Amino acid sequence: MARKMIFDVEFRSYGVCVGKLRNEVTNEALTPFQVRRMLPTDEGLFQGGENTAPTPLEYFLTGLVGCLMTQIRVCARQLSVDVADLEVGCNAKWEALRDAVGPYQARPVGFDINISLISDAPEEKVQELIAASKRACFVEATLAQANDITHSLRVNDGDAIRI
Amino acid sequence: MARKMIFDVEFRSYGVCVGKLRNEVTNEALTPFQVRRMLPTDEGLFQGGENTAPTPLEYFLTGLVGCLMTQIRVCARQLSVDVADLEVGCNAKWEALRDAVGPYQARPVGFDINISLISDAPEEKVQELIAASKRACFVEATLAQANDITHSLRVNDGDAIRI
Repeated sequence: MARKMIFDVEFRSYGVCVGKLRNEVTNEALTPFQVRRMLPTDEGLFQGGENTAPTPLEYFLTGLVGCLMTQIRVCARQLSVDVADLEVGCNAKWEALRDAVGPYQARPVGFDINISLISDAPEEKVQELIAASKRACFVEATLAQANDITHSLRVNDGDAIRI
Repeated sequence: MARKMIFDVEFRSYGVCVGKLRNEVTNEALTPFQVRRMLPTDEGLFQGGENTAPTPLEYFLTGLVGCLMTQIRVCARQLSVDVADLEVGCNAKWEALRDAVGPYQARPVGFDINISLISDAPEEKVQELIAASKRACFVEATLAQANDITHSLRVNDGDAIRI
């Protein structure tokens, strides 16, 4: 199978702090489409937030479930597989482990994804659709591999350093 | 360093299809706090959506940036590091590669995270804060490893099968 590139996807996000633990994150899609929108996050009262917006993990899981559902519908059209009443559930678990310096270390445990749909197509055709949709899902592909994540830090308006 | 568990984090998410490519995803936090909220996703017009809500990747990136920002503020309090004017940016790239069956394969390229802040603390103390915050960030920890993702499929209200 040729692994030729069809298109790039690039986003630039930018978050600022507002209130106790509220963040306002502006996401700008640069390619293959252009859009710029702000989404706010917050934490509940007992975590020190003010509950003005959903928590970051709600956004993260909406991205995962929403992306997979979109891909299933797009792939169904492309593969001419009839799909109705699509529902996707996800059980997601993490552990917070003791850390020597900070409050805790986050450890992802796993993601169980449950797909339910109605279709006239043969079951093996539906399974082929789901397999193609998993490959096409940008978020699931990201969770399935150890990603290249770099950080730079700029303190007191000095030079940014790689950390 | 002991890796004793401090607490569990568990979410249950559930998405339904509404409109052409709109999804309504309800996320329920089970532990360590309880909350249940719905977030909608959609796609732009030229992708076949109706642009009624942000795209799944906007939610995903808001989860990443928002979680890291929250952890930096929580860790700063715990480590007694003074932090003001915190801003976090992220450049995120994926490629869509040719697929033998579906429309494309998603391949994550990388995430460049840029942190800017004002602090009276010594620079090495700020770097220690950022290192602890990265370890505490549930989303960044998820992106940094290849995760355990399982799928089950239920067609026409039959039995769910592992796929």
